[in-house]
Amino acid sequence: MVVKVYGPEYASSKRVIVTLIEKEIEFEVVDVDAFKGENKSLDYLKLQPFGLLPAIQDGDYTLFESRAIIRYYAEKYKSRGTELFGKCYLLFPFHQQWLEVEAHNFNPPLNTLVIHTIFSSKLGITPDQKVIQENEVKLGKVLDIYEERLSTNKYLAGDFFSLADLSHLQLGHYLLNGAGKEYMIRDRKHVSAWWDVISNRPSWKKVLQLFPYLN
Amino acid sequence: MVVKVYGPEYASSKRVIVTLIEKEIEFEVVDVDAFKGENKSLDYLKLQPFGLLPAIQDGDYTLFESRAIIRYYAEKYKSRGTELFGKCYLLFPFHQQWLEVEAHNFNPPLNTLVIHTIFSSKLGITPDQKVIQENEVKLGKVLDIYEERLSTNKYLAGDFFSLADLSHLQLGHYLLNGAGKEYMIRDRKHVSAWWDVISNRPSWKKVLQLFPYLN
Repeated sequence: MVVKVYGPEYASSKRVIVTLIEKEIEFEVVDVDAFKGENKSLDYLKLQPFGLLPAIQDGDYTLFESRAIIRYYAEKYKSRGTELFGKCYLLFPFHQQWLEVEAHNFNPPLNTLVIHTIFSSKLGITPDQKVIQENEVKLGKVLDIYEERLSTNKYLAGDFFSLADLSHLQLGHYLLNGAGKEYMIRDRKHVSAWWDVISNRPSWKKVLQLFPYLN
Repeated sequence: MVVKVYGPEYASSKRVIVTLIEKEIEFEVVDVDAFKGENKSLDYLKLQPFGLLPAIQDGDYTLFESRAIIRYYAEKYKSRGTELFGKCYLLFPFHQQWLEVEAHNFNPPLNTLVIHTIFSSKLGITPDQKVIQENEVKLGKVLDIYEERLSTNKYLAGDFFSLADLSHLQLGHYLLNGAGKEYMIRDRKHVSAWWDVISNRPSWKKVLQLFPYLN
């Protein structure tokens, strides 16, 4: 079965695609340009009623919400490709925990930062320096906690790469490419080393090669 | 093993406690009062470095992020108490999907609404009518999609109660208790019927009885 991924150029879609590559699952892409409002077309809304990217089709399944999709494939094809919930059952709750930390602590300030530093003109908004600064401070505090965590663990959930790490790639990438905030990664020794390890995975390099926007 | 839940009076903690009751897992609670800043004490930060509620301790595990905790117990004790990822494996991705929808579409506008209508004085902020109105509109659009979904499915992920439904209880409760926005549930026939079914579960009634704030 070939998985169809809608809107491959967008950040959350890349979270899905890097997972499919890690799990060695074949996929094809369907362009949906949110900047042109194609995500609000009636056809797309039939797939994703909230008009958000991505959505996927896999046989009879239509699914949306990128972290739901990656959890699904990590569970469904547990022993195929990379074991993205890890080899040790005892660590399972920590994968869950750090994946939620990414969603609720790392993602929100970084998403705002990226909108105001990279996508403001495309979105027709005026970059707000106060918003940028506030979110930089918020994200810095989150990364300080990551620094502490990664001083005793190679990866967020423990000693091996998992969904919890992978989920940071697509927005984290913009910190070093486009947002001009490289220092936030590089000034933190353990975060920096972790970033180099996860962003050098062949799966992520492949994503950037296929969808090179701001690469 | 008795699970220790920190900060039981808070919304996200109730998400955990209702899950523990559904799964028939014994628990005890430790009061942490965020309004008094106890969540920023050094002792609590050792458990939850971001200073957020809840955190739990279960034997050697210390865990945080409520949706990570509920996923963990739903998986670990699959066949004990209520099967919260359901009896049908084919529906597994939809539980994941609607649990993410709750986290990323339902929760953010409702959380802002609740802060500005119920907790503003405790938090020392002035209720902002514009913010209330904007988030009411946002939440209304989300509930319109729920209405459509629930017109063909008894529960969000399909024909039985799951984590995806359960996760709405603790903030949804405030819409009808304290926020004065009962109409948002009651004016939508299928959402209203769904709400009555999930909020009448003995587990949720027990939570409200144990932690009656704004009940």
